[in-house]
Amino acid sequence: MALKTCVNSKNHFIFRQLFDSLSCTYTYLLGDLNKKECILIDPVLEQVKRDFSLVNELGLKLCLALNTHMHADHITGTGYLKKLTGCKSAISKASGAQADIYLEDEEQISLGNICLKVLSTPGHTNGCVSYYCKDQHIVFTGDALLIRGCGRTDFQEGDPAILYKSIYSRLFTLPPETVVYPAHDYRGMMSSTISEEMKYNPRLTKSLEKFVDIMNNLNLGYPKQIDKALPANRSCGLHYIPKENLQNTVL
Amino acid sequence: MALKTCVNSKNHFIFRQLFDSLSCTYTYLLGDLNKKECILIDPVLEQVKRDFSLVNELGLKLCLALNTHMHADHITGTGYLKKLTGCKSAISKASGAQADIYLEDEEQISLGNICLKVLSTPGHTNGCVSYYCKDQHIVFTGDALLIRGCGRTDFQEGDPAILYKSIYSRLFTLPPETVVYPAHDYRGMMSSTISEEMKYNPRLTKSLEKFVDIMNNLNLGYPKQIDKALPANRSCGLHYIPKENLQNTVL
Repeated sequence: MALKTCVNSKNHFIFRQLFDSLSCTYTYLLGDLNKKECILIDPVLEQVKRDFSLVNELGLKLCLALNTHMHADHITGTGYLKKLTGCKSAISKASGAQADIYLEDEEQISLGNICLKVLSTPGHTNGCVSYYCKDQHIVFTGDALLIRGCGRTDFQEGDPAILYKSIYSRLFTLPPETVVYPAHDYRGMMSSTISEEMKYNPRLTKSLEKFVDIMNNLNLGYPKQIDKALPANRSCGLHYIPKENLQNTVL
Repeated sequence: MALKTCVNSKNHFIFRQLFDSLSCTYTYLLGDLNKKECILIDPVLEQVKRDFSLVNELGLKLCLALNTHMHADHITGTGYLKKLTGCKSAISKASGAQADIYLEDEEQISLGNICLKVLSTPGHTNGCVSYYCKDQHIVFTGDALLIRGCGRTDFQEGDPAILYKSIYSRLFTLPPETVVYPAHDYRGMMSSTISEEMKYNPRLTKSLEKFVDIMNNLNLGYPKQIDKALPANRSCGLHYIPKENLQNTVL
């Protein structure tokens, strides 16, 4: 794993989308079959055994557990994966969370032939980033842009005007055919495209003023996991590994 | 839509996987962006509005609602989609269910540049088929082959020995890199490959004798929806469209 200028290649790329039904979180596996290395984006603590097992079955080594932001709705699997695999963790510097690698806007992450560009997309939280894989025409949008929706802006450092600007300036400027892979979906949708969201996202097809009004009046409930998840995720889940899980790490 | 010899082409193909969280069913959209036509495989009644909306937003016309078998765990959305779109329905002749088109083993379904070959894969039910899209290197395995699992064989015409033979003779003989898209997953896994299932499927890496023994001792509960779903699906859901849903068909 190295943070460097990326080499363009479509070869040997393996990709898997995974779902945690409790928090409706998507985890993504991106691997280079040639180098036999992979990245997990937004792993969930309760799904670490499943994900670790898949990584092994695919004959890959997990090199990096990457988060789009400091999540409030689930505990990250990053800490547990670090203990199991010795992988590095990475998150944006602006997130305020602990990690091995702190990412900045426009930075490039490369692993074998996989190249991800960090796009700063704050608004749901200050530290939210998206990861753009130009070679594969895909972008991982975290909680910034969801399918026909977007992340809420009523807790942590949420700010609807900043979110609107992030999405318009950093995501809606990507090639329209870019496939959008969000951190969550609650309706069984798994992917979209930038073009579709620009046309059909019910919130983002509105003016900034209207968008802010919508976001300020969602009247959503207090996030169930937030009081547990935020302290845990501030240390990338390092101190929140259930003891019983460690007794059976050979999967 | 026509049942004829298929033309090989990778152009203009659009693909979406969709999920129904209640029954853990995957629905698949396959479209030809050039012809602006699409197929839905295994649509679920409760998700018809979502799926119909997506088809429209993608600028497609739904031509065919295709089922892998007569489901016992959910009511198919086929009947409702027929009413909304005028699409045709298709299912295997051996399923015993009503449809516009009855499919036989080795038959080819083509829609624009999409070509699906019917593979008879009984064992979960007598009428179970898989749909193989050679051009895209994907196979829709219904309830025959699941990710690290397989469909149960303890109701309808279930027979573990027949299922084992189906999977080994019709699915495990496909190119190993073929991507497996099942009708269900209960652990948040979305796809696999023939190669992975041959190596890691905990049931199918066993001998026929052992497999039959495993399947005959699963001690699963009575399927919750079966008494409602089977009669409904025998007519492809035609008579089970909630009246309130029909009042708002412009989505």
